[in-house]
Amino acid sequence: MSRSARPSLRGVRTAERGEARLIHETKLRVRYSETDAQGIVNNANYLSYFEVGRVEWLRAAGLSYKELERQGYGFVVAEVSAFYKKPAFFDDELTLSTEIVESKRASFSFGYRLFRNGEVIATGSTRHACVELATGKPRRVPEELGARVFGGQP
Amino acid sequence: MSRSARPSLRGVRTAERGEARLIHETKLRVRYSETDAQGIVNNANYLSYFEVGRVEWLRAAGLSYKELERQGYGFVVAEVSAFYKKPAFFDDELTLSTEIVESKRASFSFGYRLFRNGEVIATGSTRHACVELATGKPRRVPEELGARVFGGQP
Amino acid sequence: MSRSARPSLRGVRTAERGEARLIHETKLRVRYSETDAQGIVNNANYLSYFEVGRVEWLRAAGLSYKELERQGYGFVVAEVSAFYKKPAFFDDELTLSTEIVESKRASFSFGYRLFRNGEVIATGSTRHACVELATGKPRRVPEELGARVFGGQP
Amino acid sequence: MSRSARPSLRGVRTAERGEARLIHETKLRVRYSETDAQGIVNNANYLSYFEVGRVEWLRAAGLSYKELERQGYGFVVAEVSAFYKKPAFFDDELTLSTEIVESKRASFSFGYRLFRNGEVIATGSTRHACVELATGKPRRVPEELGARVFGGQP
Repeated sequence: MSRSARPSLRGVRTAERGEARLIHETKLRVRYSETDAQGIVNNANYLSYFEVGRVEWLRAAGLSYKELERQGYGFVVAEVSAFYKKPAFFDDELTLSTEIVESKRASFSFGYRLFRNGEVIATGSTRHACVELATGKPRRVPEELGARVFGGQP
Repeated sequence: MSRSARPSLRGVRTAERGEARLIHETKLRVRYSETDAQGIVNNANYLSYFEVGRVEWLRAAGLSYKELERQGYGFVVAEVSAFYKKPAFFDDELTLSTEIVESKRASFSFGYRLFRNGEVIATGSTRHACVELATGKPRRVPEELGARVFGGQP
Repeated sequence: MSRSARPSLRGVRTAERGEARLIHETKLRVRYSETDAQGIVNNANYLSYFEVGRVEWLRAAGLSYKELERQGYGFVVAEVSAFYKKPAFFDDELTLSTEIVESKRASFSFGYRLFRNGEVIATGSTRHACVELATGKPRRVPEELGARVFGGQP
Repeated sequence: MSRSARPSLRGVRTAERGEARLIHETKLRVRYSETDAQGIVNNANYLSYFEVGRVEWLRAAGLSYKELERQGYGFVVAEVSAFYKKPAFFDDELTLSTEIVESKRASFSFGYRLFRNGEVIATGSTRHACVELATGKPRRVPEELGARVFGGQP
């Protein structure tokens, strides 16, 4: 497995949808503070990993979540799920694979797979709504974002 | 809504299963460190709230998770889901309602509803397997625990 | 030790300064997510405890930090120290004692003592500056706050 | 500033002690979950950064904290201090510089400086005692560790 911390980005043409799908891989090293008294990564911290994954996915897609916020938009988390197959331990080197699994007018979903040495140890997904930060009101995903990220169909 | 920090415990006889169902309510005050730059509670922290909820549920049922660990057993999280309906803010007083929603031989599930002023702002569930801590191997839920908590049918 | 979750507030007249000193006690129950793989509360989480302590201190003094923020002010942390004497474990019931230990024109300090069964297991302090949230610029502590909390001498 | 995620390690001969001093630099990207409602990194999370810094310092020195734990030893945190000069924001790229600033028979201290674009935004230190994990009793730093890390004088 490559040890680079630089984002790797693979454009995969999927037969079903006839469009390029970006799958982004982020490297994570388990921090001591992320473990709990069971000696393993606490279940809540996987959601923080997923959050890192989607920020890095956006960056790899040429978008900065920080810039999006500066423009007055944000993504709120509407739904999460996680499946824990094997525990993760302090100092483990994990690879988080992130991709968009669904996109609609005002919401979209990311899917995540967490690997250790090529083996999937957890999976998950998050669904997000785009909101105007000032009001918290749902908004269509900004056009530029939609076009660049979702191929124009959000 | 009662403001007591003492656990409240309601035994509800459910028609479908003909057995008592314990629903436990825990009060939580949102800490500043639990918020993020969106000004709301970060999505990952709901899983820590759920964790508090099930520890308190067990205590209300006469069981100490700490004692369970001393006997060499633990519950590992196999699966979580959460649905975020309204954001929670710093200093909000929340009520977390926890109950067992499913129990099987070697796994069981908790359901959660998070309220603010009587309104549900989030729901979720977690599925757990019972393991022997020394080996990490799945084990049947210890009999005493099963009998007291799940009415003998885990 | 009293088990009430309601804030207890003691006014102590200190000889040196001839003024009432508020000491506020907050109860905390150690959450599983606050422990780490050493089986004890991770050192970073004590700072979150301290944060809870000063929010509750302010509330006991008749001030809401949330309200202060609504008025456009906030306290930034300039400095922290913590001394760990005994480890804290999952499910421990702790009492956090918080008081103002110094107040100046534009900054003030809280002192903390964390107890388990009447024994001090950690101490610490934090120094804060008052800032205008919009600009991040240092500001004098708002007069009303100063008067009520620090006896008019901040 | 180099952007490599690989540890950089500089051996600096210090006049006062006539020995090589290892200064290790770790890159950190601020996660969304590390911010709070002030829009900046919550003060407690700096201690988790410091923890990452000393784990990476040890690795750069040829030691694995994980391996140390396997041998039955651990470092407990006895004392921390942190000084916050400038806030850190979501997505900031930070460089954490870690070094040993003191070593004694049974305890030693790390010093930390956190940089953004070459500017120090925070500093801190932590003091640690070496303990036998099974008993929690203080122990001399294991000889091999002492020799490799502290030049034989712990």
